[in-house]
Amino acid sequence: VLLASTVARAEDVLPSWREGPARDAIIAFVGAVTKEGADSYVPPVERVATFDNDGTLWSEQPVYFQLLFALDRIRALAPQHPEWKDTEPFKSAISGDMEGLKAGGMDGLMKIVAASHTGVTADEFAAAARTWLGASRHPQTGKPYTEMVYQPMLELLDYLRANEFSVFIVSGGGIDFLRVFAEEVYGVAPEQVVGSTLEAHFELRDGIPVIVRDAKVSLIDDKAGKPVGIYRHIGRRPIFAAGNSDGDLQMLQYTTIPRSSADTRPRFGLIVRHTDAEREYAYDRQSAIGKLDQALDEAPRRGWLVVDMKKDWRTVYPGA
Amino acid sequence: VLLASTVARAEDVLPSWREGPARDAIIAFVGAVTKEGADSYVPPVERVATFDNDGTLWSEQPVYFQLLFALDRIRALAPQHPEWKDTEPFKSAISGDMEGLKAGGMDGLMKIVAASHTGVTADEFAAAARTWLGASRHPQTGKPYTEMVYQPMLELLDYLRANEFSVFIVSGGGIDFLRVFAEEVYGVAPEQVVGSTLEAHFELRDGIPVIVRDAKVSLIDDKAGKPVGIYRHIGRRPIFAAGNSDGDLQMLQYTTIPRSSADTRPRFGLIVRHTDAEREYAYDRQSAIGKLDQALDEAPRRGWLVVDMKKDWRTVYPGA
Ligand SMILES: [Ca+2]
Ligand SMILES: [Ca+2]
Repeated sequence: VLLASTVARAEDVLPSWREGPARDAIIAFVGAVTKEGADSYVPPVERVATFDNDGTLWSEQPVYFQLLFALDRIRALAPQHPEWKDTEPFKSAISGDMEGLKAGGMDGLMKIVAASHTGVTADEFAAAARTWLGASRHPQTGKPYTEMVYQPMLELLDYLRANEFSVFIVSGGGIDFLRVFAEEVYGVAPEQVVGSTLEAHFELRDGIPVIVRDAKVSLIDDKAGKPVGIYRHIGRRPIFAAGNSDGDLQMLQYTTIPRSSADTRPRFGLIVRHTDAEREYAYDRQSAIGKLDQALDEAPRRGWLVVDMKKDWRTVYPGA
Repeated sequence: VLLASTVARAEDVLPSWREGPARDAIIAFVGAVTKEGADSYVPPVERVATFDNDGTLWSEQPVYFQLLFALDRIRALAPQHPEWKDTEPFKSAISGDMEGLKAGGMDGLMKIVAASHTGVTADEFAAAARTWLGASRHPQTGKPYTEMVYQPMLELLDYLRANEFSVFIVSGGGIDFLRVFAEEVYGVAPEQVVGSTLEAHFELRDGIPVIVRDAKVSLIDDKAGKPVGIYRHIGRRPIFAAGNSDGDLQMLQYTTIPRSSADTRPRFGLIVRHTDAEREYAYDRQSAIGKLDQALDEAPRRGWLVVDMKKDWRTVYPGA
């Protein structure tokens, strides 16, 4: 696979990307860091690439898909928690008030996640997420959520791996939710998933070892939490990072800003901009979900590639 | 390398292990999980092996080597912290009272680590650890610490990797200290190191992105913390775990105890028992460092291999 990809003609690479400056920039970067003997060469072990998930690898409208999963569980648990009727974000969750939920931001999301996903073992949680992903359909497209991934980004993951990059997901979403489908859908192994994390503890339950999920947040892997998640899990600074919102600003900074004037290593920042109301969604500076404002302003100065979904992508979803 | 190892004659494998039941058990397990078509076969992606570090991959007497590094830093910082003179564990640290330090256990160690390693960036810390490891010598052997690794265990790491295992370190020691030498000494990449972890935060310092280490513990990756560390970082249950003390008890349980009567997957637990006062150290049930008591009692019932350093290992340190 490695050899075949390396010698593939340029036109065979990233086929769902339209020819143009975005595709050219990616190919030029990969060419530079893999060119042995060049000043720009980066050894394979240091070719770390990190990808945000929601809005970067799959859709995130009308709200984060994990939130829809959490809401289904909250509604099922509500009869046991009468106090939720008058407390946000549960009140909005039970009534299906998406605007109320959006107003709570990532903190609100984490409260929903903590309340709906704790007291269960890791295995029970994974089984519930797997069942939900298999059975549920997106309210607008009718597709399974795992088919609302971006074909051009799947090709980019493969292209980087074919060039000996280690590809990680670094997401504000829950690490254990992501791990349920990341390997099958993205080819990203559980140990290469970084995400928001709950505290947990180990116990022998009737003699069987289990991990139990606790109602306390260990890491919110969003904004300034992303470089911390990368540092903890990966322990190396990436040379490539891709995101779609201000939640990725610090990851993009951490990845791309040189550490000194002597630091001339090539680095790549990529922002997926949602410009395609017809094939997907169009939103940026004003959106409660996936707000892209500060990072968009900073992109030209940092040299980050802003991908225009409508112009740069031949297709959006696989098989479309 | 893979092919060559697979077809190697049995006698070429693990050459620093004496022939006998310990070496035979390891080889039989690896043969079973790699035998395609057999009930015992485990796909490569699920061949996760986790190794404790202190006392399992390198020596830990008279005290954990990372503690010696921390003590050197505490002494240098002591003039700025007059209150340390009357507060444990700092009092013992400054006076070099090893017994006092041992009495403080892992909690005391973490206090020392937090106090001596915070307020610096991740890069500054790594540089300090690298310098110390290069310059320091063990008080009894006079060797660099990175040469006090166990040759038979290095061979075991290589043997497992040659058989498509993913090898992780899961240590009570600090993750960032380990990462400084794990790749060079053990061939274990930073992202495959799990260890005790401090909180940290991201900032732009004079425009340069840095991770700053905070004086708060995020995870003590010891005892019941080890399965939690494995769950967070790896997201898969290991099929092979190696340790040397009661700090590894829960990791061994998590790795080897079947989840149900239908769970017949082969699993391997290994305990390095320090029986060699001449070539290394002899200690177990009574030791403040590396106490091996409950796990030793549980080993026969769980089927864990207890490796007798004196009997089972031809050599202890490389080049000896
Ligand atoms: Ca996003
Ligand atoms: Ca140990």
